[in-house]
Amino acid sequence: MIKVGVIGCGYWGPNLIRNFVSCPQTELVWACDLNENSLKGVLRPYQGVKETTDFNQILQDKDVDAVAIATPVYTHYDIAKTSLEHGKHVLVEKPLAMNVAEGKALVELAKKNELQLMCDHTYCYTGAVRKIKDIITSGDLGKVLYFDSVRVNLGLFQQDVNVVWDLAPHDLSIIDHIIDEKPEYVSVHGMSHAGNGLENIAYISLRFKSRFIAHIHVNWLSPVKVRKTMIAGSDKMLVWDDLDQAEIIKIYDKGINAKISEREKKRQFLISYRSGDMCAPRIEQTEALSLMVKEFADCIVEKRPALTDGEAGLQVLRILEASERSINADGANVRIEYSDGGTNGILSH
Amino acid sequence: MIKVGVIGCGYWGPNLIRNFVSCPQTELVWACDLNENSLKGVLRPYQGVKETTDFNQILQDKDVDAVAIATPVYTHYDIAKTSLEHGKHVLVEKPLAMNVAEGKALVELAKKNELQLMCDHTYCYTGAVRKIKDIITSGDLGKVLYFDSVRVNLGLFQQDVNVVWDLAPHDLSIIDHIIDEKPEYVSVHGMSHAGNGLENIAYISLRFKSRFIAHIHVNWLSPVKVRKTMIAGSDKMLVWDDLDQAEIIKIYDKGINAKISEREKKRQFLISYRSGDMCAPRIEQTEALSLMVKEFADCIVEKRPALTDGEAGLQVLRILEASERSINADGANVRIEYSDGGTNGILSH
Amino acid sequence: MIKVGVIGCGYWGPNLIRNFVSCPQTELVWACDLNENSLKGVLRPYQGVKETTDFNQILQDKDVDAVAIATPVYTHYDIAKTSLEHGKHVLVEKPLAMNVAEGKALVELAKKNELQLMCDHTYCYTGAVRKIKDIITSGDLGKVLYFDSVRVNLGLFQQDVNVVWDLAPHDLSIIDHIIDEKPEYVSVHGMSHAGNGLENIAYISLRFKSRFIAHIHVNWLSPVKVRKTMIAGSDKMLVWDDLDQAEIIKIYDKGINAKISEREKKRQFLISYRSGDMCAPRIEQTEALSLMVKEFADCIVEKRPALTDGEAGLQVLRILEASERSINADGANVRIEYSDGGTNGILSH
Amino acid sequence: MIKVGVIGCGYWGPNLIRNFVSCPQTELVWACDLNENSLKGVLRPYQGVKETTDFNQILQDKDVDAVAIATPVYTHYDIAKTSLEHGKHVLVEKPLAMNVAEGKALVELAKKNELQLMCDHTYCYTGAVRKIKDIITSGDLGKVLYFDSVRVNLGLFQQDVNVVWDLAPHDLSIIDHIIDEKPEYVSVHGMSHAGNGLENIAYISLRFKSRFIAHIHVNWLSPVKVRKTMIAGSDKMLVWDDLDQAEIIKIYDKGINAKISEREKKRQFLISYRSGDMCAPRIEQTEALSLMVKEFADCIVEKRPALTDGEAGLQVLRILEASERSINADGANVRIEYSDGGTNGILSH
Repeated sequence: MIKVGVIGCGYWGPNLIRNFVSCPQTELVWACDLNENSLKGVLRPYQGVKETTDFNQILQDKDVDAVAIATPVYTHYDIAKTSLEHGKHVLVEKPLAMNVAEGKALVELAKKNELQLMCDHTYCYTGAVRKIKDIITSGDLGKVLYFDSVRVNLGLFQQDVNVVWDLAPHDLSIIDHIIDEKPEYVSVHGMSHAGNGLENIAYISLRFKSRFIAHIHVNWLSPVKVRKTMIAGSDKMLVWDDLDQAEIIKIYDKGINAKISEREKKRQFLISYRSGDMCAPRIEQTEALSLMVKEFADCIVEKRPALTDGEAGLQVLRILEASERSINADGANVRIEYSDGGTNGILSH
Repeated sequence: MIKVGVIGCGYWGPNLIRNFVSCPQTELVWACDLNENSLKGVLRPYQGVKETTDFNQILQDKDVDAVAIATPVYTHYDIAKTSLEHGKHVLVEKPLAMNVAEGKALVELAKKNELQLMCDHTYCYTGAVRKIKDIITSGDLGKVLYFDSVRVNLGLFQQDVNVVWDLAPHDLSIIDHIIDEKPEYVSVHGMSHAGNGLENIAYISLRFKSRFIAHIHVNWLSPVKVRKTMIAGSDKMLVWDDLDQAEIIKIYDKGINAKISEREKKRQFLISYRSGDMCAPRIEQTEALSLMVKEFADCIVEKRPALTDGEAGLQVLRILEASERSINADGANVRIEYSDGGTNGILSH
Repeated sequence: MIKVGVIGCGYWGPNLIRNFVSCPQTELVWACDLNENSLKGVLRPYQGVKETTDFNQILQDKDVDAVAIATPVYTHYDIAKTSLEHGKHVLVEKPLAMNVAEGKALVELAKKNELQLMCDHTYCYTGAVRKIKDIITSGDLGKVLYFDSVRVNLGLFQQDVNVVWDLAPHDLSIIDHIIDEKPEYVSVHGMSHAGNGLENIAYISLRFKSRFIAHIHVNWLSPVKVRKTMIAGSDKMLVWDDLDQAEIIKIYDKGINAKISEREKKRQFLISYRSGDMCAPRIEQTEALSLMVKEFADCIVEKRPALTDGEAGLQVLRILEASERSINADGANVRIEYSDGGTNGILSH
Repeated sequence: MIKVGVIGCGYWGPNLIRNFVSCPQTELVWACDLNENSLKGVLRPYQGVKETTDFNQILQDKDVDAVAIATPVYTHYDIAKTSLEHGKHVLVEKPLAMNVAEGKALVELAKKNELQLMCDHTYCYTGAVRKIKDIITSGDLGKVLYFDSVRVNLGLFQQDVNVVWDLAPHDLSIIDHIIDEKPEYVSVHGMSHAGNGLENIAYISLRFKSRFIAHIHVNWLSPVKVRKTMIAGSDKMLVWDDLDQAEIIKIYDKGINAKISEREKKRQFLISYRSGDMCAPRIEQTEALSLMVKEFADCIVEKRPALTDGEAGLQVLRILEASERSINADGANVRIEYSDGGTNGILSH
């Protein structure tokens, strides 16, 4: 039984608490929040969980194996670092930290101390994304050609981060999870319309060494809510509409056949179309968070890296940091840094 | 009665012929195509129209007032130029010509000879776009913030142009028609997956001096057909779904109210949301092409510039030419040239 | 402060409990269920609520003003009757009772004892139905011509009632709520496919003295979930799609204009069509159950009949009982009895 | 080469003409219409077709093998009868005739003279209905349980027939085509709202000896256009949405498993649900009318009954005639007569 403390009981914390309580491999022993009243409210249904407003109290409890951190982003680094130093396995909400430097330090510390560092990229545990990963891994799509996501709605202008930091981590973590290649550079065209300097609309293009291309449209100022992703392969293509509960993923047996012919002495590309059946497979309904919590517990026991480990969290930070630079350079391509090397990353042409 | 000859009776020509025949202000007197058989087939329902395989025969007919050119793009410039030189008013299919230089020459020649030069940007005459223009002009949307278009489907890989030249002129001509500001630069991320070097997917970002931003996703390799445009204003927002015949335009009384407050000694942006009724106005069903033909006839009579005149056609060419440079520079911002000035236009940062 | 006891804490009871707790006019003092463990579980978040497995204990508490009954249908009559005899106001889940005789007895007993008897027809308190009632009452639709509802999905074959008793009360209570006329007779074509003699598909036609007509399709064996109602008036028509959260009600400015002309010596009906704008009004999101609970409290204080009082519950029973006879007579029209008169109600022709 | 004359060139005739011209097995030699001008207009694209305003001229042409009749319904019987008497094969638009007696006389005459009598139930030749027939015949759906069709829109109030005669023949011919059992009786609840005595809304229930049930909602006064059919089987279910061009048929691997258990001394039905993948098969796009014309030609050559022969047309008439009686009896069940027997058919209970 892995003994867990949850730090931060605001928006997301109660969901973690509920799942740590119901997971057969974990026991919730501590919960921490600066607001004592809200903490009491959250814990009312659960008996025997200790309360504190100081997370250090949890870290000093020798019985505690692991902590889950659901505090504001700017506190992630400090709390995670201290926890790792106290020998606790750590689960952190996305994004892992405020920047690449912090993320890298956490990944290295966890490695050194032989502890789990996991990032809660919940989407990767949904039935939809697991099905998509299966389909891609099985080779059914053929060579994957592009990933196109639209994640827009009216609402939730954040006060401290722009729409890229708010919404794009979902897509970035999914791309990292299902695609074997890392992007080389990123270009982000964004605009702030509310007058507070924080972009509310952004178009993110990710370029890869191969011909694969990814694009994400995130937007807080849309009249309609859309959560739609297209992934095209050379053999089949799929559409994932997260708002269509009945047919969340549709796989189209459609595509082109391209061949080269020598016709009338001219080399020509002959492109023909295939259009076959569409199939919407049954998607498993298990709550994503319960699988994420189980993965955390399993990884601690089995001493193996999690599906969405610290490195996965760090990868999202790399792209977010480069995106920030690209926005500030009006959408110029910015190289995503995978080493410690130090230019500003804007590509010259 | 304006006497018209139609040059080129392949894909689009028959539609022009049908509309010139039914328009009460025009009389179709000539039709020209290199393929004599297909020409005869097209003209079978129409009696008394003269046939030719040589368009010069039309130009030498003193009775002819105007010609409509629906031939392959690379021939537009020569045929239009010769026609203008022979004193004929000219209607040209989109795109106006192969490049800005050609387009500019045609615009200047028409001006010098005091002839109409009009570009068939059909979409600008649809009930939907006319309604959108009315809404924007009336001020109902407030300040227009962004234009986002998705124009994707499986099909029609062209042999000579990429997806930008094929599909984007629709959106570019619409933007030019409904927005009062010209874009400063363009960034296009595209990819060719068919192996013939012609991009089949492209993401076009148009940047303007104001905070208005436009983005167009064009794609020949999509599992589903989408023709959807969102236009957000500070007061209202609209969605135009060209495939939803019942509710082609939806206007949402939605938006944000942003104000600045001084709270807890910190300057803060307070953003609140409005979400009111949605209305789908009745859209007029008149065939766009019949209105375009009528506009051509009216402009000849009234000696005024057409809604989609040569300058409008030239504007689309300016953006297409800059887009081409951007694609070749992996999506770098390229300045759109409005003068004769001569750099390669790629912005340095 | 109205002191309330909730009897029955299975499927729906916890929702009542939550709303009685949060309603400022009511105080939850007792909760009762035969299953002690599930009762404890339900009450865990609420402190100070007394528990019992015997509802008589609640009735004997002089402090209790009212009870809400969410037990199996066959127990409604006994519990409600005893409660009214003990001077408690009573709220009952739908359907009010097992048959018209029971329903009538309860209505009369409540009247005699000057107590509230209310039926929880929750749908009547939803934003959608309240908006529909407003629209009809305002006269916007003109004369209401028909009501057509499709309420189908795969699932929940009940063990004791057929699909008519399970799903149709929703539509029947809504019709009773928004239409001023009572149906004269009902015809139900149903079929049992599961082999247990309980119909899983049924088509219900309600005939009225006027030309208004209502039809309800209820179905447990449908591949897709549909909750769609069309209401047509002589001036406008509306569609209510309860699964379309964004545009739950659409009002169409559509219809026909019928007039009689004398043409060519023949009396002719000239029918022309109108097709104008569509509008989807903003729908209020307040939880229906909270308004229902408030209505219960208000009616107790103001001593007025509830929107969905015992008589409304009785009306639904009248139609259900007649429907049962119609199904057994293969869909024959069955007169709905509004008096004590006693035939079997099947119409002869 | 079968030589054909088309009689009636109004709404549907031109479609027949176009298909008889393009069918390689038929040659259009005559066309007839009372309106000489419209006839000339229709024939303009087709050279060498003889024109007449008197269909007898066609019948007297010994070269003519067959005629297609697309005149108003009340003339079908006379023209078809005379044509069969002149030894011509006959294709008639739906409905075959004005009543069962006429239909029966035509079927018998054709049989006696050994001529083809075919009814143009076009829907039976669409890719969608052919696919549905294949699926049902293959046994994929299991035992077919119900057929539910909604065929509603705003428009086209006919002057001489009600909505049942106008729209229901489509569904009735489809049911007859795909289901092996004939209905026993029919109940139709209809209403006329335009004041001309012709029903504009109707609910048709067809009862069969087995547990199969069919229901059709036809409506000229609907705010939205719907063409949706559900067909449920014991193993799978399908939805055919004729307006969803991309996914016209969806097959759901969904259903229930019902078994009887003896639990707690009570015989109980245990019903469990299956919910698997959904598949939308590719539907063939060949024009239905071209297949219908080919079937007509093939049947003449092969001397075999057509898929939609005179008997199929007669079957639709039987149900329409019984429907008429049911409407006039306020929806009472009316027995569909399959012999010459003579009661009024209203079932007594």
